Amino acid sequence: MSFLDQITEPTLLLNEQIARTNLHRMAEKAKRQNVKLRPHFKTHQSWQVGEWFKEAGISAITVSSVKMAQYFARHGWQDITIAFPLNRRQLPQIAELAQQITLNLTVTSADDVAFLREHLSTPVNIWIKADTGYGRTGIKTEDTAVLDAVLQELAQTKQHTFLGFLAHAGHSYKARNHKSIAAIHQDTLTKMRGLKERYVGTWPQLQLSIGDTPSCSIMEDFSGMDEIRPGNFVFYDLMQNLISSCRLEDIAVAMACPVVALHPDRNEVILYGGSVHFSKDALPQADGGVIFGLVVPLTENGWEAPLPATTLISLSQEHGIVRTTPELFSQFKIGGLVGVLPVHSCLTADVAKSYLTLNGERLEHLSGVVV
Amino acid sequence: MSFLDQITEPTLLLNEQIARTNLHRMAEKAKRQNVKLRPHFKTHQSWQVGEWFKEAGISAITVSSVKMAQYFARHGWQDITIAFPLNRRQLPQIAELAQQITLNLTVTSADDVAFLREHLSTPVNIWIKADTGYGRTGIKTEDTAVLDAVLQELAQTKQHTFLGFLAHAGHSYKARNHKSIAAIHQDTLTKMRGLKERYVGTWPQLQLSIGDTPSCSIMEDFSGMDEIRPGNFVFYDLMQNLISSCRLEDIAVAMACPVVALHPDRNEVILYGGSVHFSKDALPQADGGVIFGLVVPLTENGWEAPLPATTLISLSQEHGIVRTTPELFSQFKIGGLVGVLPVHSCLTADVAKSYLTLNGERLEHLSGVVV
Repeated sequence: MSFLDQITEPTLLLNEQIARTNLHRMAEKAKRQNVKLRPHFKTHQSWQVGEWFKEAGISAITVSSVKMAQYFARHGWQDITIAFPLNRRQLPQIAELAQQITLNLTVTSADDVAFLREHLSTPVNIWIKADTGYGRTGIKTEDTAVLDAVLQELAQTKQHTFLGFLAHAGHSYKARNHKSIAAIHQDTLTKMRGLKERYVGTWPQLQLSIGDTPSCSIMEDFSGMDEIRPGNFVFYDLMQNLISSCRLEDIAVAMACPVVALHPDRNEVILYGGSVHFSKDALPQADGGVIFGLVVPLTENGWEAPLPATTLISLSQEHGIVRTTPELFSQFKIGGLVGVLPVHSCLTADVAKSYLTLNGERLEHLSGVVV
Repeated sequence: MSFLDQITEPTLLLNEQIARTNLHRMAEKAKRQNVKLRPHFKTHQSWQVGEWFKEAGISAITVSSVKMAQYFARHGWQDITIAFPLNRRQLPQIAELAQQITLNLTVTSADDVAFLREHLSTPVNIWIKADTGYGRTGIKTEDTAVLDAVLQELAQTKQHTFLGFLAHAGHSYKARNHKSIAAIHQDTLTKMRGLKERYVGTWPQLQLSIGDTPSCSIMEDFSGMDEIRPGNFVFYDLMQNLISSCRLEDIAVAMACPVVALHPDRNEVILYGGSVHFSKDALPQADGGVIFGLVVPLTENGWEAPLPATTLISLSQEHGIVRTTPELFSQFKIGGLVGVLPVHSCLTADVAKSYLTLNGERLEHLSGVVV
């Protein structure tokens, strides 16, 4: 019996071999470039996928919420960075975690540091979130007065340890080729090294951490950086392919969707698979429109290359509309299954709540776990 | 202690009073217009919210998946329409449901009818999905040859009962005022009545079912229709407000989000609340941009009117960025909470996985239930 036979609803397929290859490629690069790989686990959020990283020698990870830190701590991870601004409302949970594992927090202000000094007695490590140009959050690398103030607070905070500066060059997601990723990456390296030069005299142990998937996938030079924190690379997706971070054949997940209706008059196929299954990130197209996925034929061994000119053009809550060509239309049968490569694998995995491997094994996702 | 004190993570607040008022307004209209209200439960997906409908005299409901039908059947609902094209891969689950409750299925082809005749012995009721202009799925009302063929199959299907034609005028979501909703609604009524005229001689019991929230909220005339199936109206959202289906004060849900960072240089506030909490539907703005929510101050009694010129301008996985004015910026405090009115309450509720009422009570959402 094929793993396909057990699928009755939209189901996120995970090709373990592709994911492991992506993982090893990044781990090898980190080793080659003498930088620590502290992968971001927000993409997969699965303890089983986490085990693949352990097997590749990874012992320290990144997450983006206290809940994820709790989950991976329960599954044996002993060194976790929460790369998200300190959420003061979760202080009790943070204090509990700090007693169990090496916990690294991220602050965005001197006030955050003062808060941790006054309210958290258990030692934690502290990263200062630096903004190298993304403009989402963190302290701009050129705001030296603000940075000086944070470091003054840290100097007065004896129970906690200042680790260094942590940045996420998320503006690399606007890139569409290697050249523009390289420009963003070089700018990030320059700014981060500048921070180190400024503060290393006072803080000789100061570290630098960067880590967007596009830069980590494409670039080789990480000189001066101590660690990288890419996350999406374990699965990749159509957005990363558009950015030029990966090939389509590096994408490790595909949503299997039942075909429920056919519209030959407009070459449209209705899938059971909507925005509650994919989330709603859209992929910009050359013609100014957007799509929500590429369609791949499913086989006993996983999936094949995307069908030409066959895209998921619309999502409502439970319906997906695929438009294809007159030539390919006859490939679709009501009651059959097709695969869809997702635009944003992190969000799709989050709503999928679990994975089905090509062996028919269910893997957990934190969003499907009732705590 | 306020219900606000227990909130540490993004949490979907539900104002029961507003939801019950929305519910009663629609139930009264249905009674007044002598049409059956068969509400769509895909918006709330909560057995507890379902009880509010029972108390308002509702006994028959609509859902959009077999899973939702199973859930509400477990919670005592005995008459359920699955308003989604028949998913043949769930035949065993459908057969099981058909033995427990009055199950109404939706078909989009003669082939679907033949499939049910051959493979499902337990009686069900069958709606033909009619397309009155939305263009998502269903048989176009003018495709009489196709409709004739489906009805011929139904005539040969003795164990199942043909109910009539079911339509969803989802193109009303493109409307932005009452006049354009009225035009779509009148067209839908005309087309549906045309179907009845054509087939009522052969099928004297034939019923007509329509039910998008914009039309059901705004229109009064449903002559000739037997039932309406709106769903979103129980909560409403910013999209319905843009369409002109509801006032902002009719919106019954708001996401409470912790404030985690402040950027006074650009009047931006970073929330713990991202695309995994809101999903990713965007609200088009007059300037061509989009927003992801309006910000409301939270109080002991729920929430106030939206702050002027204060919008959720960006969502990444866990971060939300609110942009406000210099005057209002000081209202935001790190460690505090703000509310966000969602763009699309159905999707937001689905990722929220549960609700918190203003009494501090947790209500279930099916997406948070492990079966």
